[in-house]
Amino acid sequence: MQNILSYQTAFTDYLKGYASTKEPANLYNPIHYILQLGGKRLRPVLTLMTAEIFGSNHTKALDAALSIEVFHNFSLVHDDIMDDAPLRRGQQTVHEKWDINTGILSGDAMLIMAYQLFENYNPQVFQSLAKLFSKTALEVCEGQQYDVDFETRDDVTIPEYLKMIEYKTAVLVGAAMKMGAIVAETSEDNQNSIYQFGRLLGIAFQLQDDYLDAFGDPKTFGKQVGGDIIENKKTYLYLKALQALDDSDKHRLEQLFSVNLEDNSDKIETVKQYFVASGSAEATKEAIKEYTNKAFEVLDTLSISEDKKQMLKTFGTNLMTRSV
Amino acid sequence: MQNILSYQTAFTDYLKGYASTKEPANLYNPIHYILQLGGKRLRPVLTLMTAEIFGSNHTKALDAALSIEVFHNFSLVHDDIMDDAPLRRGQQTVHEKWDINTGILSGDAMLIMAYQLFENYNPQVFQSLAKLFSKTALEVCEGQQYDVDFETRDDVTIPEYLKMIEYKTAVLVGAAMKMGAIVAETSEDNQNSIYQFGRLLGIAFQLQDDYLDAFGDPKTFGKQVGGDIIENKKTYLYLKALQALDDSDKHRLEQLFSVNLEDNSDKIETVKQYFVASGSAEATKEAIKEYTNKAFEVLDTLSISEDKKQMLKTFGTNLMTRSV
Repeated sequence: MQNILSYQTAFTDYLKGYASTKEPANLYNPIHYILQLGGKRLRPVLTLMTAEIFGSNHTKALDAALSIEVFHNFSLVHDDIMDDAPLRRGQQTVHEKWDINTGILSGDAMLIMAYQLFENYNPQVFQSLAKLFSKTALEVCEGQQYDVDFETRDDVTIPEYLKMIEYKTAVLVGAAMKMGAIVAETSEDNQNSIYQFGRLLGIAFQLQDDYLDAFGDPKTFGKQVGGDIIENKKTYLYLKALQALDDSDKHRLEQLFSVNLEDNSDKIETVKQYFVASGSAEATKEAIKEYTNKAFEVLDTLSISEDKKQMLKTFGTNLMTRSV
Repeated sequence: MQNILSYQTAFTDYLKGYASTKEPANLYNPIHYILQLGGKRLRPVLTLMTAEIFGSNHTKALDAALSIEVFHNFSLVHDDIMDDAPLRRGQQTVHEKWDINTGILSGDAMLIMAYQLFENYNPQVFQSLAKLFSKTALEVCEGQQYDVDFETRDDVTIPEYLKMIEYKTAVLVGAAMKMGAIVAETSEDNQNSIYQFGRLLGIAFQLQDDYLDAFGDPKTFGKQVGGDIIENKKTYLYLKALQALDDSDKHRLEQLFSVNLEDNSDKIETVKQYFVASGSAEATKEAIKEYTNKAFEVLDTLSISEDKKQMLKTFGTNLMTRSV
């Protein structure tokens, strides 16, 4: 077993060799551009780490890890078009640097290229990887659609919200880890357990993201603090607050989430006070702990050494105590 | 072996059972809509026919045929966004009936669903189908990109144009047939020969489309006659005419292809005269014949009965003598 950083290095080295430019340049240059923009490479690192946890060499899992990263970037390119987002990781988004048509077509090509990255595995492993990939990718599309639908609905429930973040974010974390397990050809029980571990951790991760968006330290949080509040995004914090507030406060919070302002500093402060006073901030922290603990419980069902379980727990704990 | 019509019926029946609506409705309703809009179902019929030609039952190839049709419709949904097209088969396009974001996301889901349709085949067949599918799908994206690139270039060569239509249109015809051959588990030689047959026929088919767009009978041609001329599309007819005309006529034709008019009747007539006078209309007819004959020559290399070869020839001949 190696440490996280060495997996990250192994992955970025492998990525460098992959993202070369081909013809037609207008199709492949944007793909090269988005893939080299950076990011934490969290998902592919999880694939490599999981492969070694189940007794394989991480190099065997590089193609699967790359597939996950290419897919993730495909979804960013298309989501950024849908969200009309000008920036991604501090740089121009693909449709902003080129145009919408380029974003659509280059994204399509990336989705196909993600499947092609399984082609060097044997037919059984190939089929397992591709089936998991398709199921996951379709769930990510469904999650994105639910997210869009929720924007114009005022009756979103907490279970619906949890299903949305599970599909949009968490299943890909689960799939990234399961792919490592598939490549290592471990038992189906192990494959399913590590998927659940990743899925639960992914939900915790997204709830943490919701929490930090409001209560993160502006000095260390990568994005604009209060961004979700500015965009009237119905996060766990918001839905939980609505549940707990009395009718007049509930109405006031809903009203705050129906306007788009020039200067948002007052709005952000007031909304955060509601989040704290309603107990929703605390409830969100509780939910993060709960999903993290559920993830750790799954580890008990895995037939791997205590060392490796400890490594996964450390990884999970680090993820959940991050401030960025 | 059955006749074309019975394959068509078998396919549309199978499609009916597939295109049911699921949740989220805003993702799956557009997919259901575009899949039931109709069309000739030419590609899936070729998959079923080819499976039987190589000794399989066509029912075994239904999933592969459906995958081809779902992919074809995915590409229509995304292409219609890029082309800003309001109508498809006389009905509203997906992005027009819903919106662009719906068109992007539903299209993405269809591309994934196309891969899922291979999942019931055994691992070896699955891998063969998925590899062929990915290669073909990526070529279709490249073809679309070349098509976009050609709009703003004035130095497109005939070999470049032929490569573009090969990628954008013909490889999918080849792949549709090869998938039938893969499902039937025939020899690799047979698989490759039928792919070449389909690819060459696909090029002839697209050249025929170019020809009919200018010289088709308005009473029977499905689309607006002269549509390519109105849109200044650099087709085989146009590129061949430029090659043959003297400098002053060449300049005049280029000039006609640089304007967008309200009333196009004079422009269409003048351009058609150039196509005839330059010999380009005749050269296009010759090229169609040439590619069709090349396709027929490939049949000689196939180890199938003369009856079956005759059936493929009849199919090709019908396709090339169509007026719609």
